[in-house]
Amino acid sequence: MASQLFSFIGGDSGDWRVVKMNAVVGATLETVNYLQIFDEDFAVTPPDAHWVLRGTTSYGRYVERAEKEALSARQPTLNRPEAVCAALIPISKSEAWWNLAQDERRKIFEEQSKHIEFGLKYLPAIARRLHHCRDLGEPFDFLTWFEYAPADADAFEELVDFLRRSEEWRYVEREVDIRLIREQTQPI
Amino acid sequence: MASQLFSFIGGDSGDWRVVKMNAVVGATLETVNYLQIFDEDFAVTPPDAHWVLRGTTSYGRYVERAEKEALSARQPTLNRPEAVCAALIPISKSEAWWNLAQDERRKIFEEQSKHIEFGLKYLPAIARRLHHCRDLGEPFDFLTWFEYAPADADAFEELVDFLRRSEEWRYVEREVDIRLIREQTQPI
Repeated sequence: MASQLFSFIGGDSGDWRVVKMNAVVGATLETVNYLQIFDEDFAVTPPDAHWVLRGTTSYGRYVERAEKEALSARQPTLNRPEAVCAALIPISKSEAWWNLAQDERRKIFEEQSKHIEFGLKYLPAIARRLHHCRDLGEPFDFLTWFEYAPADADAFEELVDFLRRSEEWRYVEREVDIRLIREQTQPI
Repeated sequence: MASQLFSFIGGDSGDWRVVKMNAVVGATLETVNYLQIFDEDFAVTPPDAHWVLRGTTSYGRYVERAEKEALSARQPTLNRPEAVCAALIPISKSEAWWNLAQDERRKIFEEQSKHIEFGLKYLPAIARRLHHCRDLGEPFDFLTWFEYAPADADAFEELVDFLRRSEEWRYVEREVDIRLIREQTQPI
C-alpha cells in the first residue's frame, strides 16, 4: 500500500502505440503517437516527450472493508500477455467536488454512482491502476490506466459509458481518453 | 480547497525559533535552531538548511458534512498577532494503518479516537494547518502546524496528550515534536 510514483510520457516512442485520443470534456492534450510508462521519477525528460503526466498509487479513499476484499479477490495484475489493449484516462474533478465532505463524496461515488459495485462486474477482465495527482500540482487529479484483451473491448466501452453517465461524473470537468495497443516486441 | 505546497526548512535562520525538539516515537530529526516556512516550492535550497520537509494542504479524508461546518465556524486563521507559540509535528503511520479500508480508518479516527470532536474543544484557541506528504515520497505522512497564544499553552499540551493516548495513535510509528516561538520583528 506504499505510494509509488509513475510517469506517463507521450511522445514519438514507447511500449504503447496510441490508436485514438480525444477530449471527452475540457481541454485536450497534444496528440502523440506513443506512450512510455516509467515506474519511478526520471531525472531527464526524454527529448521526444511532448508531455509528461505523473501520479502516485495510494490508499483507497472510498473503498470499505467488504469492497476491498471483493476487489482483491478478483482484480487481475497488469502485464497479462493477452491484455494488449490499454486506456489512459486522465480526469480532473471540479472545486464543487473537492469542497464536499467525505460522507457526501462517498455517497455520490458509491451509493448513487455504483462506481465499485459496477466496476466489480468487469473483473477479472479489466485490469486497472489508479494514480492520484491532485496533491502533486499536476494538471489532472487522477490518471487511470486500464489493460484488457481485445475480446473484452466491448465490455470496457460499457464500463466507461456507465461511469460517464453517473452522478459522480457530473463533477468531472476535464477528461481525456487515450486508447493504446501494446507494441509487438521486436524480433531479435 | 485547492492543494497548496508548503516547505518547512530547518536551519540557522527563519521566522520561527526552535525552543524544543524531541522524537516522540521513532527516529528524530537533526536538531536545528530556526524554522523557515515557504508557501511554495523553491528552486534552490537555502545554504543553511539542515533539512526540508514538504507537504500539501488537501481535502479532508475523514471529515463529514456536520463536522466540516462545525470546524469552519470555529477555526481561526494562522498569523494571529497573539499566537507567538507554534508546534510542527511530523508523523508517519504504519503500513497496518494504510492497509485499512476507509470505513475502518474513519471508525478509529473519530468514533474511537474522537480526533475531530475533541479537537473542536480547542477552537478557536489553537490554529492548525494539516499538510499531506505520504504521496509526495517524503519521509513523513503528515506535517501538522499549530499556532497558539502563550495563555493557551496548557490547552495545547492537553490536546496533544489526548491524541497520543488515542487508538489512532497506536498506528503512529514515527513522530517528532518541534516547538517554536515567533521571532520578534526587528525594529527598523
